[in-house]
Amino acid sequence: MKFSIDCFPCIVRQAMRVIKKSGMDEQQQIQAMQQVLRALYDEKPGANSLETVASIQAILRRMTGTEDIYRKDKEKSTQEALAVYPRWREEVLLSADPLEYAVRLSIAGNIIDFASADSYDLDATILRVLKQPFAKDDLEALRKKITKAGRIIFMADNAGETVFDRILIETMQKPVTYVVKDAPILNDATLEDAKAAGLDKVAEIISSGSRFPGTILASCSPDFIERFRQADLIISKGMGNYEGLSAENAPIFFLLQVKCGLVEQDLGVPCGSIVVDEK
Amino acid sequence: MKFSIDCFPCIVRQAMRVIKKSGMDEQQQIQAMQQVLRALYDEKPGANSLETVASIQAILRRMTGTEDIYRKDKEKSTQEALAVYPRWREEVLLSADPLEYAVRLSIAGNIIDFASADSYDLDATILRVLKQPFAKDDLEALRKKITKAGRIIFMADNAGETVFDRILIETMQKPVTYVVKDAPILNDATLEDAKAAGLDKVAEIISSGSRFPGTILASCSPDFIERFRQADLIISKGMGNYEGLSAENAPIFFLLQVKCGLVEQDLGVPCGSIVVDEK
Repeated sequence: MKFSIDCFPCIVRQAMRVIKKSGMDEQQQIQAMQQVLRALYDEKPGANSLETVASIQAILRRMTGTEDIYRKDKEKSTQEALAVYPRWREEVLLSADPLEYAVRLSIAGNIIDFASADSYDLDATILRVLKQPFAKDDLEALRKKITKAGRIIFMADNAGETVFDRILIETMQKPVTYVVKDAPILNDATLEDAKAAGLDKVAEIISSGSRFPGTILASCSPDFIERFRQADLIISKGMGNYEGLSAENAPIFFLLQVKCGLVEQDLGVPCGSIVVDEK
Repeated sequence: MKFSIDCFPCIVRQAMRVIKKSGMDEQQQIQAMQQVLRALYDEKPGANSLETVASIQAILRRMTGTEDIYRKDKEKSTQEALAVYPRWREEVLLSADPLEYAVRLSIAGNIIDFASADSYDLDATILRVLKQPFAKDDLEALRKKITKAGRIIFMADNAGETVFDRILIETMQKPVTYVVKDAPILNDATLEDAKAAGLDKVAEIISSGSRFPGTILASCSPDFIERFRQADLIISKGMGNYEGLSAENAPIFFLLQVKCGLVEQDLGVPCGSIVVDEK
């Protein structure tokens, strides 16, 4: 999706969080932030929001000297999610509609997002999302597509959220290819993060070939693009993947929580909404 | 106070709100925001946060062609506060400790702040602030100083908040000089805004001579500086005045709600705190 004026304060706050985690002194922090402002100033009109975030984060990697600034946060998110995994797996099995329950848990897990907020309350979010009406409700269409699908392509979003995706994958009982980022970007899941969440036990894990904080096909590997194009069902998690894939002509279902003004406007539903949206 | 890394996202968001209110088209909005980023990039290290906000807002006045972008919002805030004024004035008179009650109402009014947030819930804030413990509690020292004071200098903050300051001024029963901004900046009260709130009925109203979103003495008129220096009690409302005056050697009491990381760090109390702080 096209970069909008709403992206500026979000990207600046996102950059500030990364800079504050870096261990730089106050003067270096201000200088790093000024480089971010300079890059935003130079941004081409009409740029994609994901490209902008990716280039800002690349600048911050150089300035902080850190390739994976959210590594410890990602490990902690994954461990915390794994701690509650048995309980929620059990609840899914006992529920009247295991697929809906698992879809809701996977969307609840989308709250684990250091690109959008400093912290999250996982328990409160799960309880909310289990009851909250879908602002876009294509669940029945998704149910039918899952039944007919061969292999499902599952576009991962954040580390920790992965554990709740695992519950959904276990519930769907279909072969799944779980697609992660090629290298660390914010708290997006990489191969290492997905394995730590046990996704290798329930799915084939592959890299998209891209380090964008979402999926823009032009930035992905030819192998991944070919599998994406041949898929008869793609489940896409989170705002970053939505921002990159919402204009693609493909059999995609977007599962996400709406957390920013850009996606709010594009989907036409308010911030805080939960969505199962068929492309 | 010195500009900190926490100021960047706040100032960018503040600028975004002004730009979105301006009626410019999308492309012009992005260009205006890029001018803001350019100015932040050029900001001198060690600049005062208020100087930075003032220079950004000056750029936005030129780009939007609007001198008083929050005029209608200020009028609305004032009318809404005047609508509840008789009720809260009555509650103060009936309360066991009218001064404390009126101090709390004046601090509650500090929620009316378009520089910090898009909207506010006045009723909920009043109910919260009437019960919330002070994170800094120099109320008894303030009470003694009011008793002894001749004329009190009262540094105003935002339009609408003025109505709650009026209740405090009426309660103190001392001669008061109410100090407003020399020209519109964000939703800070000007002479016109203070009169609309009826402050002319209970106090002498003067301009500080400055258009900063807070009070930096060096930017004020010689007349105001002289009165400030001669005062035996100064009541200062809000974060902007605190940012500019916290290092001054003067008999100041700061009354405010903590709404940003910079003031949070400086005062050593968390965001959301309410404060009566003797300098």
